[in-house]
Amino acid sequence: MRTSIATVSLSGSLTEKLTAAARAGFDGVEIFENDLLASPLLPEEIRARTADLGLSIDLYQPMRDIEAVPQEEFARNLRRARHKFELMGRLGADTVLVCSSVSPLAVDDDALAAGQLRQLADLAQDFGIRVAYEALAWGRHVSTYDHAWRIVEAADHPSLGTCLDSFHILARGSDPKGIEDIPGEKIFFLQLADAPLMAMDVLQWSRHYRCFPGQGGFDIAGLLGHVVRAGYQGPLSLEVFNDVFRQAEAGPTAVDARRSLLVLQEETGLATPPAPVVPTGVAFAELVTPDVVPVSAVLGALGFTRTARHRSKPVDLWQQGEARVLVNTGPAARRDGTALAAIGLESPDPAAAARRAESLLAPVLPRRRALEDAPLDAVAAPDGTELFFCASNELAAPGRPEHPTWTSDFEPVEHGPDPRRVARIDHLALTQPWHQFDEAALFHHSVLGLSAQESVDVADPYGLHRSRAVTNSDGTVRIALSVGPAPSDDGARAQHIAFATDDVVTAARCFRDASGRILRMPANYYDDLAARFEFTDAELATYRELGILYDRDTDGEFRHCYTETVGRVFFELVQRDGGYRGYGAQNAPVRLAAQHAVRPGR
Amino acid sequence: MRTSIATVSLSGSLTEKLTAAARAGFDGVEIFENDLLASPLLPEEIRARTADLGLSIDLYQPMRDIEAVPQEEFARNLRRARHKFELMGRLGADTVLVCSSVSPLAVDDDALAAGQLRQLADLAQDFGIRVAYEALAWGRHVSTYDHAWRIVEAADHPSLGTCLDSFHILARGSDPKGIEDIPGEKIFFLQLADAPLMAMDVLQWSRHYRCFPGQGGFDIAGLLGHVVRAGYQGPLSLEVFNDVFRQAEAGPTAVDARRSLLVLQEETGLATPPAPVVPTGVAFAELVTPDVVPVSAVLGALGFTRTARHRSKPVDLWQQGEARVLVNTGPAARRDGTALAAIGLESPDPAAAARRAESLLAPVLPRRRALEDAPLDAVAAPDGTELFFCASNELAAPGRPEHPTWTSDFEPVEHGPDPRRVARIDHLALTQPWHQFDEAALFHHSVLGLSAQESVDVADPYGLHRSRAVTNSDGTVRIALSVGPAPSDDGARAQHIAFATDDVVTAARCFRDASGRILRMPANYYDDLAARFEFTDAELATYRELGILYDRDTDGEFRHCYTETVGRVFFELVQRDGGYRGYGAQNAPVRLAAQHAVRPGR
Repeated sequence: MRTSIATVSLSGSLTEKLTAAARAGFDGVEIFENDLLASPLLPEEIRARTADLGLSIDLYQPMRDIEAVPQEEFARNLRRARHKFELMGRLGADTVLVCSSVSPLAVDDDALAAGQLRQLADLAQDFGIRVAYEALAWGRHVSTYDHAWRIVEAADHPSLGTCLDSFHILARGSDPKGIEDIPGEKIFFLQLADAPLMAMDVLQWSRHYRCFPGQGGFDIAGLLGHVVRAGYQGPLSLEVFNDVFRQAEAGPTAVDARRSLLVLQEETGLATPPAPVVPTGVAFAELVTPDVVPVSAVLGALGFTRTARHRSKPVDLWQQGEARVLVNTGPAARRDGTALAAIGLESPDPAAAARRAESLLAPVLPRRRALEDAPLDAVAAPDGTELFFCASNELAAPGRPEHPTWTSDFEPVEHGPDPRRVARIDHLALTQPWHQFDEAALFHHSVLGLSAQESVDVADPYGLHRSRAVTNSDGTVRIALSVGPAPSDDGARAQHIAFATDDVVTAARCFRDASGRILRMPANYYDDLAARFEFTDAELATYRELGILYDRDTDGEFRHCYTETVGRVFFELVQRDGGYRGYGAQNAPVRLAAQHAVRPGR
Repeated sequence: MRTSIATVSLSGSLTEKLTAAARAGFDGVEIFENDLLASPLLPEEIRARTADLGLSIDLYQPMRDIEAVPQEEFARNLRRARHKFELMGRLGADTVLVCSSVSPLAVDDDALAAGQLRQLADLAQDFGIRVAYEALAWGRHVSTYDHAWRIVEAADHPSLGTCLDSFHILARGSDPKGIEDIPGEKIFFLQLADAPLMAMDVLQWSRHYRCFPGQGGFDIAGLLGHVVRAGYQGPLSLEVFNDVFRQAEAGPTAVDARRSLLVLQEETGLATPPAPVVPTGVAFAELVTPDVVPVSAVLGALGFTRTARHRSKPVDLWQQGEARVLVNTGPAARRDGTALAAIGLESPDPAAAARRAESLLAPVLPRRRALEDAPLDAVAAPDGTELFFCASNELAAPGRPEHPTWTSDFEPVEHGPDPRRVARIDHLALTQPWHQFDEAALFHHSVLGLSAQESVDVADPYGLHRSRAVTNSDGTVRIALSVGPAPSDDGARAQHIAFATDDVVTAARCFRDASGRILRMPANYYDDLAARFEFTDAELATYRELGILYDRDTDGEFRHCYTETVGRVFFELVQRDGGYRGYGAQNAPVRLAAQHAVRPGR
């Protein structure tokens, strides 16, 4: 099916919005009237611009407060409509959205509404225009889709149909099944928006908190199924009012938007992109750094040893157990201090994983590798982190050259024994750009096939953070996405790598004894642990000494501690016992405060 | 009454919070447990710090999920409570807040709840501690204040009382009148918070949207009246969870907080600060500029003439009708480009106005004037704009030297006739720092005695703005406060001065003919005007030619146009007909888009 997006869903001038929609691959747009009013382009110029960009104008919207009003008022409304139909002719738009009236003049009279809409449709027909009548969830007398359809049916005019909007239908709790009772050819348009499930005034909810399908809590796929079964043939069009998208750059938002439609079409059986290939583990995490010394010092103190060196690039492999960290001191690394730049994901089928990612609009990265290197497929996540798809160990066994392994690019160097205090990478924690938190969760879910957990709020001394983890089913890939309180904090975005250990006390003690600097936690925290749990004094003394934090859920226990920060990266040692599934969010305020306390400045 | 504030209401480390509270003049604080846990200070150190700052610790909070649970669980809870009572001893806090349980283990059994709270109070008594039991609006079985009080009454223990929280009471729609039935000595604590009226989940509403009294929609003064009549003797304490305050600097937030309590006490008859002296007009607006040429050019084209020059400073007075603009090219002006720095408000009693402002914590500005100058009282608004209280014309008549006028500092210069196209300053539009929008409205309302109108949303191409006007009763002083979409936009905050004219067409035409540059509006805007209103083609052609925008409300009409921007300032010509009360908010998206379009960069 064709895809479309309302200009109101994107930030910027009308020109910027159209360009972003076209670049993201949309087939058409809905022109939101305010965007047209504010544009210096004449309708004819907008028409030419959209045509040049390969976009159709699928809808002009909205026309408000038309129907069920006294005759004199309706005459004024028809006059207004004639002006707009002329405008649409110049624009080359053939469908107009009419929202159910919120006017205090409107009366509760379906026959009057139908009669006036029929007159409007008569006028529209003269201009070759179709009128799509939609029930606003807060319409004065018409607020449900079936009510709007009854009025359209009664009006019985070929130029009058209905417009369905998933938000208006699902926010009211209407059963979308009845959509199948509407003849498909009378569904003139379909607008799609998701929203987080919130108990709030529906108008405010709609105006500020809509999001793209798959980012909220509505069953948009279910609704779309009903619309398709009804025989709807028009475009799938996104109409999203969202305070964050209004501020975010239009380009990434448009890509995010179209990805959401691709996933929705897949869920509904309308499209079959390459199936997701869920990663089975973390092959490596790659740090870039202008100064190898402090990074090496921390990794060394954690028990990592430098086991190999890249054949052609200034990249070292540090390893302990199954945890592998690449340290890249190449020229690109010198720009921005020490940072977590890339993640290698073990994949049972790297090529298929890359095809999946590409089909879902993940930017494919040029292979930044020498001729003899293993050709690794990589894409960029919304936050810029590079994701490499690496053959899992079984695939990349010796004698299977069709599955080259990234490790073959490295030559072993002499090194000491592995102390095996760290077993593997437990999770990667990526702070997201403020405007892209919802996009990131949808990306990791749809592109990588990871499951998103619930979003949690975490209070930092200087604002509220949100955090949301995405994982594979056995927990061998865990990525914790988080976002700070304000876009202005984006510059200081820190990332961290958490290493799994079976014995956090020993791992932390060895780290400290090797001159590693553990982030110190306040004494008051341990008094609180003593109040809440029955630890022995010795245990508490150990935890206090080593900055170890504690959490518990119904399935198990979690002990963890943090290193100092190097550049924009720090490390965590975590010990999961039982089936603990979280990330110690309960302790994050204390950790964030401790990090603020040692940060210079502020 | 004593005033107090919960540390959770302020941003920063515990030390920063305590310092801000003390500087703003609070008598005490509630220590929020998470702030203590995250602090590197030991309880004894916190005790010493608060004492040094002259603050008492009025409450330690919260203790959760204590009551109405199985015996085994309650034993654990008592153990936890004992730890916390010991901590409170070290802290020097003698009252603890216990919130009604939200635990899934809690049972609906008031007798059990009362019995366990009695046991808790017995233990507390051993430590010299009082337990204040509060109904959370979302408590599992106890969610109303009268229910919490019945349990406290049944427990009948001298160390057990109730805590009242205005949010929990008013958000549930409870009638606060019943508070008078509680003996005053059993109301151990009173927490105050306002909130905007929103139809949303009460837990989310409470956690993110609370604000200080007078900033929301609750009748806090009414509730406080009941509490006082009940005989409550404790402090008035603010407990505000607010996502914006969490990010804002603690110092200004604390001042804003205490101002809100001062106003609340005044409204309730508990305090009598100097009465408000409502300004009766705008004496002048003062621009500072490093380059007088472009400012002079715009003012000249608008019909202003330079009528006087300050005796001792590089400040010119430009005048037209009753509109006066000072242009200051002094050294302080050179820092930040052209900006609106000060507003002179005509006051029937400048000294009393200044006393009012000072009593409500407005920073009094040092008199930046030479010896011979008229001593003007001035304070700083939250956004840094200087507000001068000037004797109104009647007061400052010749022969009344006790009411010096600011104009006596100026010496007339030779000048041409006044074209009188502009009659007066219609309004001043001040963009506020992102974190201080609610504070600004409360400031202008309480300090200046202006009335705040409803807040409106305005969509800019790059985000959502909010706008709220404050005015005196006859509209001779109007200030439009607005705020941009994100704190990161604070650097580009623009201000503007709107001049009232009886004939915007002539005023705009003369401006343009004098080489003034009018902000051009898109042609599409005028097509829309043609659709919505019945203008003649000639009228529309004139409006289009001169960039004049149009709005209408039930009382009258509004025509207005804008000049180009100079530095961070632009000007507006407005013609109000009939009783139009707004500011053309309907047209703001088009104006903002036009300003973005001509702004270099972006």
